Amino acid sequence: MSSPLFEPFPIRSMVLPNRLVLPAMVTRLSGEDGIVNDDIQTRYVRFAKGEVGLIVVEAMAVHTAKSGPLLRIGSDEFVPGLRELARRCHDAGPGKIVPQIIHFLKISRSGWRQTVDMLSHAEIDAIVDAYGTAAVRARACGFDGVELHMAHAYTLSSFLSRVNPRRDEYGGTLENRLRLPLRVLERVRRMVGDDFPVGVRFLGEECIRNGYTVLDAGPIAVRLAGAGADYLSLSAGGKFEDARAIPGEPLYPYTGYSGDRCMPGNQYPDGANLYIAEAVRAAVRAAGLATPVVAVGKIPTRELAERVIAHEKGDLVGMARALLADPDLPRKWREGREDMVVRCVYGNVCKALDENFRRVTCTLWPKTLGRAPESDDTVPPAWPTGTPDLRADCKNGRVLLRWKAATDNEAVYGYQVLRAEGEGILRHHASVRGSSTRYEDPRALGGQVYRYAVRPYDLAGNHGPMSPSVRAVLE
Amino acid sequence: MSSPLFEPFPIRSMVLPNRLVLPAMVTRLSGEDGIVNDDIQTRYVRFAKGEVGLIVVEAMAVHTAKSGPLLRIGSDEFVPGLRELARRCHDAGPGKIVPQIIHFLKISRSGWRQTVDMLSHAEIDAIVDAYGTAAVRARACGFDGVELHMAHAYTLSSFLSRVNPRRDEYGGTLENRLRLPLRVLERVRRMVGDDFPVGVRFLGEECIRNGYTVLDAGPIAVRLAGAGADYLSLSAGGKFEDARAIPGEPLYPYTGYSGDRCMPGNQYPDGANLYIAEAVRAAVRAAGLATPVVAVGKIPTRELAERVIAHEKGDLVGMARALLADPDLPRKWREGREDMVVRCVYGNVCKALDENFRRVTCTLWPKTLGRAPESDDTVPPAWPTGTPDLRADCKNGRVLLRWKAATDNEAVYGYQVLRAEGEGILRHHASVRGSSTRYEDPRALGGQVYRYAVRPYDLAGNHGPMSPSVRAVLE
Repeated sequence: MSSPLFEPFPIRSMVLPNRLVLPAMVTRLSGEDGIVNDDIQTRYVRFAKGEVGLIVVEAMAVHTAKSGPLLRIGSDEFVPGLRELARRCHDAGPGKIVPQIIHFLKISRSGWRQTVDMLSHAEIDAIVDAYGTAAVRARACGFDGVELHMAHAYTLSSFLSRVNPRRDEYGGTLENRLRLPLRVLERVRRMVGDDFPVGVRFLGEECIRNGYTVLDAGPIAVRLAGAGADYLSLSAGGKFEDARAIPGEPLYPYTGYSGDRCMPGNQYPDGANLYIAEAVRAAVRAAGLATPVVAVGKIPTRELAERVIAHEKGDLVGMARALLADPDLPRKWREGREDMVVRCVYGNVCKALDENFRRVTCTLWPKTLGRAPESDDTVPPAWPTGTPDLRADCKNGRVLLRWKAATDNEAVYGYQVLRAEGEGILRHHASVRGSSTRYEDPRALGGQVYRYAVRPYDLAGNHGPMSPSVRAVLE
Repeated sequence: MSSPLFEPFPIRSMVLPNRLVLPAMVTRLSGEDGIVNDDIQTRYVRFAKGEVGLIVVEAMAVHTAKSGPLLRIGSDEFVPGLRELARRCHDAGPGKIVPQIIHFLKISRSGWRQTVDMLSHAEIDAIVDAYGTAAVRARACGFDGVELHMAHAYTLSSFLSRVNPRRDEYGGTLENRLRLPLRVLERVRRMVGDDFPVGVRFLGEECIRNGYTVLDAGPIAVRLAGAGADYLSLSAGGKFEDARAIPGEPLYPYTGYSGDRCMPGNQYPDGANLYIAEAVRAAVRAAGLATPVVAVGKIPTRELAERVIAHEKGDLVGMARALLADPDLPRKWREGREDMVVRCVYGNVCKALDENFRRVTCTLWPKTLGRAPESDDTVPPAWPTGTPDLRADCKNGRVLLRWKAATDNEAVYGYQVLRAEGEGILRHHASVRGSSTRYEDPRALGGQVYRYAVRPYDLAGNHGPMSPSVRAVLE
């Protein structure tokens, strides 16, 4: 079971226990006061217990703007909560923990939003100052490093953007678009010292009209790495420019196509965004720099995660939704128990909750629990009569599967649906919550023979016996 | 100079002289009457003379709806012009020629547009009929085959779409979304007979929110190929869903992000959409089908075109903008004179002209000529004093190149700008029209040493001597 995924990975002064990274993910668990609360503690401690190599805590504001339930790090009143968070995560698992620090511009329910061309030079200088002092505060809190948020719809990303409308030395050419991000990085480095890890998250592709692609992201990465970034974490999309306007609501990024590309759902192939990390990493290496790159974008399996490393698509593997679905994924992979992982179905219910300004949970979690279950149980679920009587009805261009419920000593958590074409291998096709015993296949083709089977799993991830398979043919 | 690109390529009853394809491209040269006119003849004969293997003539309507300057094939009055077009193209070059036939829904300046859920079953049947009779008419006109338009924002593509809103047997599951496209293909096949090539163009990725990706395009391709499509030509995007709304103008596809992805401009890497053809071709081959796939998306060089074939990303190579810039590209490649090709700069002026409902030309063409020049001249341009005195000014985050004009016995057509990093190889970086002697590099990075050179070319594509290189460093 030896794998480069589980070898220690040094990043400046910190050594990650493995190459798995939890990228920053909105939780909406914080209060309006921006102080770390119990829900935040519980959420991140759970990730730490699962043994992920690096936890990047959700974006916290470096400045003092009000913005609903968002963590903050812009003054010393936030230090005790953040310090407690770092300490508890360190106690709970072997991983390292860094906060993502963010500056964003103003936005109103009227639809108006502040854009980078409205900023004076004094306001730009204040952004540099705010990042610098926030990074120092992150160090004082006991975090292992700090990540500068230069991605998605926020201030530094809007400077990097190919649609940055400024006409002075902060806009126009790529070098000018890089000017503020580089000033921020240089200031942070100067203030936190030479030994403190400073990562950067930025977009490998904007995924908006006239936006930039890897052609710009390569040079951006080279400049950031050359200026001392310790890792480069790549995202895609998540912009205001194509966000859906809802009257009376502030515009929210991630609601348009670029939001789809940021968190590719089940309509996307696995590893949909890996080409981005691969191209950017190649540009960094071609420039003679060894800076590690975090690759992300729908990486559900250990096999794909290992391929990322082996095929040099990235040096670290980021997974947000897969870890939300099962925080114990790193530990289960390390222990060779991948079949006990509760697999994310990429249905993006978590994304939709965020878009609707609600607390972010996983649709797979038991509803009454409201969080990922914890169980050391080793007894798998069973079919009460030895078989679930799986049936497939084919009509109206649809294949509908139905089966009888499994039983478990604790609780049936869900069912995996497996599908094969003809006599081929049965592969994981979808997952269904334990409260349901039906599944409709949206992608079955006419004239093709399919076989389906189902398999129950419990709260610990123990999988019961696979049902006998059934055949289905759509006319 | 032997290359698979220039080997004959059979598609059912036709044999292409090479693997290069001109995909259907809006010209806006037609009149409102939809009849082939002299401008249309001239445009396509010019492509034929350049020896492209397959010309796909711009979309022509199978039905009788009015829609501005668009070719039509919906009744017999259009036959004489189309027959003349096929005959003249056959006379002018070795390539084959097929019309792309299209059905589209109604759209108004008010912003209203008809969508597929508004169609009755009788209207759906009429679409099948219209395609069938139009295909028979294409055969009667002397075309070598016919291409069914199932891509972009039009009727059959809207049925295939993952956002198809129909709730009956023509919507919902993938098989239902395929129902009308398959009916059309089957009807066309039955009516044109077994020996007439029928190709299909469809989207490998919709590039809109909730749109489909190669995960659906693979199965779509398998079904279309299984139903007798002779080639599968893949496009991306070009949808109404993200088109920019301009009050008083009918909504036009290609104006949003999905339009960028349809015709990737110079912000995209070369071969930006090849992953689509590669994934779809792999799905077709995995299903045991040999149907050839046309790969497209910013393929500027023979080296990349050959890589498409060698790496099995496609069987045929489609190029629209590169052939608009230089219709003689296939002949020049075949003759080993790639350095005489006038290279498309992917500035998408052609795309912008189309979006503004203007005749589509190439910005590189001599302005007074209004079309690609033809010249057998062999005398290259020269620098009058032996050198153009190339200078690079570096300030305000910009590198500005300026040089003295070259001279030519006929006319200087343009200048290639070459760039190297440090002491690396000088590579083609941009092209500038002959009327200009300056270029600003938008992508130069601070701290990096660059070298630049310029090279003039004339109407025939003869390239004059490269200038001495100059160094440039941005602070």
